[in-house]
Amino acid sequence: MLYIVGLGLGDESDITVRGLEAVRSCSKIYMEAYTSLLSLGLDPAALANLEKLYGKEITVADREMVEERVDQVLLEAADADVAFLVVGDPFGATTHTDLVVRAKKTGVQVKVIHNASVMNAIGVCGLQLYRYGETISIPFFTEVWRPDSFYEKIQNNCRLGLHTLCLLDIRVKEPTWESLARGKKVYEPPRFMTVNTAISQLLEVEEARGGSAYGRDTMCIGVARLGSDDQKIVAGPMEKLLDVDFGPPLHCLIIAGETHPLEEEMLEFYKIK
Amino acid sequence: MLYIVGLGLGDESDITVRGLEAVRSCSKIYMEAYTSLLSLGLDPAALANLEKLYGKEITVADREMVEERVDQVLLEAADADVAFLVVGDPFGATTHTDLVVRAKKTGVQVKVIHNASVMNAIGVCGLQLYRYGETISIPFFTEVWRPDSFYEKIQNNCRLGLHTLCLLDIRVKEPTWESLARGKKVYEPPRFMTVNTAISQLLEVEEARGGSAYGRDTMCIGVARLGSDDQKIVAGPMEKLLDVDFGPPLHCLIIAGETHPLEEEMLEFYKIK
Repeated sequence: MLYIVGLGLGDESDITVRGLEAVRSCSKIYMEAYTSLLSLGLDPAALANLEKLYGKEITVADREMVEERVDQVLLEAADADVAFLVVGDPFGATTHTDLVVRAKKTGVQVKVIHNASVMNAIGVCGLQLYRYGETISIPFFTEVWRPDSFYEKIQNNCRLGLHTLCLLDIRVKEPTWESLARGKKVYEPPRFMTVNTAISQLLEVEEARGGSAYGRDTMCIGVARLGSDDQKIVAGPMEKLLDVDFGPPLHCLIIAGETHPLEEEMLEFYKIK
Repeated sequence: MLYIVGLGLGDESDITVRGLEAVRSCSKIYMEAYTSLLSLGLDPAALANLEKLYGKEITVADREMVEERVDQVLLEAADADVAFLVVGDPFGATTHTDLVVRAKKTGVQVKVIHNASVMNAIGVCGLQLYRYGETISIPFFTEVWRPDSFYEKIQNNCRLGLHTLCLLDIRVKEPTWESLARGKKVYEPPRFMTVNTAISQLLEVEEARGGSAYGRDTMCIGVARLGSDDQKIVAGPMEKLLDVDFGPPLHCLIIAGETHPLEEEMLEFYKIK
């Protein structure tokens, strides 16, 4: 049996009781540190906390392992109980759907244990979840790669009066171009997009496209470390959020659509004075 | 301190470790049984399971209490630690946002403990969460009340190639019209909309509107008891799902938009043969 267990947002205590029981019963535990982070995945101390809670050793499955060695994980899960730990909810990322598909195809039984993810916990900012349109991802722009296909999506959401959740780029264990050319991988330091970078990229795209999907005075909500004890939520016009220090990762951003009275009441608590 | 604790989907073991610790530290525990259910809220045996796990007595706060006696809960939370338990995630329903707003206004500190909700756990069916448009609610039609404002929303989602999550009506502790007229409340038995009823209402609206937003052959996914051990997921054209017995509540429905190859691979596992 392959258990795919959501760890939720925050720290080791955000696993569910059901998830904890499953993990403790497994003979092998993998933790995926690729699509998401959680301070856990990258901080050795946090990993030790987890191992202590579970009473088991954890193998961190980085990006390469998830993509290249899934077959081995599935082989183990055919004979024994294996847990695959995932930050947030198991279906937050495409990678895990792929894992489930491969498991089912090879006849390995799968049990999914759900948890909170950014997709629902973001409700904490006060904008109602059923009033969001399509979720977008904002990638780090480079000198030569500035993809802006998210622009039409924001435009569509705005036209319909809907809010837009913007997931911000995470770059973990990316090999440097230089090292790839030399044939021996050297990794870039991890990078996490801040609310500030996201907004400045958004404003750049709006200026280039000129479609008035949004502007410097569009109400947005910046969120950092959602679900953690030190989460930070600040609401205000885009240009004002540009200067707010949201602190350590992860960050995400919401572009507000039309707001209802209850939503506005809630946003008041988070507004920049 | 007022803890608003998400119980997740499924049973008593779906609370997070963090949530369980909070509940155990509280002097008073309310559980809300209004907007959602969970088999828990309505089944006395399940409530006893919860009380055993928490080592505390639970006061079930029904619809009337949530709306009329919130002030009392907040007064208690001003002096002591009070937990308010909510099925799914605390921000799945407007009611809880209102509770947070009122708490903050009266100076009561609030701590939210997140969990899975239908809004993210629905990812289990294989359609990617970031490819959903606006979520809709389908109410029970009556002789005289057949609101269909969801139709334009589905149409907008379909035009953009996006999936639509349909939340289905729940009627718990609704006073009968007759009893209201007599001035002494008698409640109707609880009702939960099935996937079948939802689809037949949807088809009726499509026939009346004629906007070709969807039709009898539109691919849909019916989901029952999401997150429970006996969850049921069946994918197929609307007209085929009309005859599928999904069993006990809760049900929800997804109208598929454009699907990507990985989404299709996953749907294959759930398709009606």
